[in-house]
Amino acid sequence: MTEPARNSRKAVVLVSGGLDSAVTLAVARKEGFSCHTLSFDYGQRHSQELRAAENIFRALGAAEHHVAALDMRAIGGSALTSKMAMPRSDPDRQPGAHIPATYVPARNTIFLSVALAWAEVLETGDIFIGVNAVDYSGYPDCRPEYIRAYENMANLATRMAVEGTRRIRIRAPLLNLRKSEIIQKGTALGVDFSITHSCYDPSPGGLACGRCDSCRLRRKGFAEAGIPDPTRYNREEQ
Amino acid sequence: MTEPARNSRKAVVLVSGGLDSAVTLAVARKEGFSCHTLSFDYGQRHSQELRAAENIFRALGAAEHHVAALDMRAIGGSALTSKMAMPRSDPDRQPGAHIPATYVPARNTIFLSVALAWAEVLETGDIFIGVNAVDYSGYPDCRPEYIRAYENMANLATRMAVEGTRRIRIRAPLLNLRKSEIIQKGTALGVDFSITHSCYDPSPGGLACGRCDSCRLRRKGFAEAGIPDPTRYNREEQ
Repeated sequence: MTEPARNSRKAVVLVSGGLDSAVTLAVARKEGFSCHTLSFDYGQRHSQELRAAENIFRALGAAEHHVAALDMRAIGGSALTSKMAMPRSDPDRQPGAHIPATYVPARNTIFLSVALAWAEVLETGDIFIGVNAVDYSGYPDCRPEYIRAYENMANLATRMAVEGTRRIRIRAPLLNLRKSEIIQKGTALGVDFSITHSCYDPSPGGLACGRCDSCRLRRKGFAEAGIPDPTRYNREEQ
Repeated sequence: MTEPARNSRKAVVLVSGGLDSAVTLAVARKEGFSCHTLSFDYGQRHSQELRAAENIFRALGAAEHHVAALDMRAIGGSALTSKMAMPRSDPDRQPGAHIPATYVPARNTIFLSVALAWAEVLETGDIFIGVNAVDYSGYPDCRPEYIRAYENMANLATRMAVEGTRRIRIRAPLLNLRKSEIIQKGTALGVDFSITHSCYDPSPGGLACGRCDSCRLRRKGFAEAGIPDPTRYNREEQ
């Protein structure tokens, strides 16, 4: 999918390499934005995520892709470097019932803040993020009230907002969609989900485990959407 | 000044190496906080800043000091890496009349966001920042309304806030003080200003130029406070 931009509006799009951010980028492209994609190298366990982000950038015809390096190992193992053990999958967990073990302190706040700096450099107010408050919820920084509060803060933080040249808009087009609806939307927009990466615990060769919370949610989403799952799972682990 | 903490409350304190953040740290120590100081290596022109931050940490008896590395050169020369020319000093400039050339996109927002992550790791809600809305104002992210909006966002962003265990407080004790008042407060708290660094354009040996906006504001502050300025200025440049 390399649909040309219908106008020259720029947007910064946070791209993690996962399914949700790929669909978010496709939505931004469909709306005609020239997309500047941003990923973070913060010592995550799997370089597959960063490779997937770059592949998504290429496949969806974004304007430029950058990886910001944030080395915050010094401020504690769990802050953005995710040294915690794999969370056990719990298919009966109620969304929102508790904050999952995979929660990373202030992650979306840090990511949005670097995106905000880049948006100001690019002189645009549009920032896209693939957060979702429905499936796999429980993250405080994936809720609508958080996104609204961030946007309000951003409009007081920046030169362009204060000078009145541009209003910051934090765009979260997947906020209220179920995983199956996100997959349907992405399919309609031509997203190749085989290049996206969701697994928390892939094999050394990059195959998804098929068993972690993220794999289970992804498989369930494809099943509910009635769309074949193109993910390469590690068959030995099934 | 190594006054022991009167209790075990922790705080994260942003320390740039400048005069304001040194006084902010002294205020936090005076209030009895065990202070965890945070500086940023974002490719700033002068390593003097980072050395000064570490000296301030030691002199004021903080608990631990960390430097977070943020490499964002990829997202544009002016975003946090400050490649712009030295701003001309303008002694007649009215505070707040315009946003200075030294404004760095989203800087305080990024700094506070990393501080927020560390605060969550430390399980504390207190974050100190030495922003000031009086002298040398015009930065959008140094205004009271910005700080309030950031705090509101932070209380929706984090596990501890959502679970009700701790409320985030963005403490900006210098917000409404003039530079001379900040210097008087720091002097009363025993801050050694000779180890702080303000100059935008120091000599290779680390002497302050005495002429940039930051040096002028500092000199004026000491003069108005009636306190001798211990800064070593580059006499050849006077």
